[in-house]
Amino acid sequence: MATYFSGGTEGDWLVRDTHQIIGQTLPHVTHLKILNGTDGVSDSFWTISGVSSHARYTHRAEKIELNALQASLGRSEATCGALIPIKKSEEWWSFTQDERRNIFENKSKHIANSLKYLPAIARKLYHSRDLGEPFDFITWFEFSPTHVSDFNNLLAELRASEEWKYVVREVDIRVVKAPKS
Amino acid sequence: MATYFSGGTEGDWLVRDTHQIIGQTLPHVTHLKILNGTDGVSDSFWTISGVSSHARYTHRAEKIELNALQASLGRSEATCGALIPIKKSEEWWSFTQDERRNIFENKSKHIANSLKYLPAIARKLYHSRDLGEPFDFITWFEFSPTHVSDFNNLLAELRASEEWKYVVREVDIRVVKAPKS
Repeated sequence: MATYFSGGTEGDWLVRDTHQIIGQTLPHVTHLKILNGTDGVSDSFWTISGVSSHARYTHRAEKIELNALQASLGRSEATCGALIPIKKSEEWWSFTQDERRNIFENKSKHIANSLKYLPAIARKLYHSRDLGEPFDFITWFEFSPTHVSDFNNLLAELRASEEWKYVVREVDIRVVKAPKS
Repeated sequence: MATYFSGGTEGDWLVRDTHQIIGQTLPHVTHLKILNGTDGVSDSFWTISGVSSHARYTHRAEKIELNALQASLGRSEATCGALIPIKKSEEWWSFTQDERRNIFENKSKHIANSLKYLPAIARKLYHSRDLGEPFDFITWFEFSPTHVSDFNNLLAELRASEEWKYVVREVDIRVVKAPKS
């Protein structure tokens, strides 16, 4: 059920940069492997995992817009990827659902801002907090080289938002698809 | 981080009844053990686990009421317990957050009805769905023998609610505290 993101010396994605955004970074590696199970993670330097679960904040009207616009993973032109694991503060998790939703969307416009970048940026969210993982979420993005600056703008908007005041650990790992051998 | 509920031949709680409410039941055992880790689960007939995580539907006003009224676990007079693991349908999980909250509280009054039974019934919720467990939630209740009928009334109200139309598996395991040897 869980998906494993393994940093090491082999994998379908070549790691270009490992940016420490806030908190402890992950060691820089040359390759990233994405696995649906624990087979093949043993030769890795680090492995983080999460599960694709139900959305925690999205309302129906937003989901209809997202579904209409979003692209799927695995597009041939989407040769750029980003793996962004995030941990939020204890204060964030002590908020009630209405308080978290208020910061997430009413104040930070997390969904509304992200919609502007669809379908160029494909995205999949994995939940890690209940698994006892070091990060609370792992977000995986795929986009074409022509949309790198759009992707950077999306991240800049999110990181400037009130929601991001509660992010205590974030690593931004940029990858490109390895040429087929 | 996860808590393990282990049914077997030893443990601090004696199992009185194992009621199949809906879907596949769990095998009846004589003892229930509650463990904060996997040590000691090997001699069990079944083990289910979950994590105590943040509340998914509670709003601040409700949390203030809950915090003011609720009792903690481990009260000496609370010699009766109930372990109730639950799984909800795929339809439930395909709902958006606003739809789930609407069924959970606006229509089913899950929190408002539960408040009536505080502080007599102490309760702790464990989340299991992201762990790939057979149940989505495990709820553990503690109460004194004088409050058994109150507890049954609470369950009857919940089970008659619209929210429970989405429950596809539920087992109701009643236990009493084992005498100290």
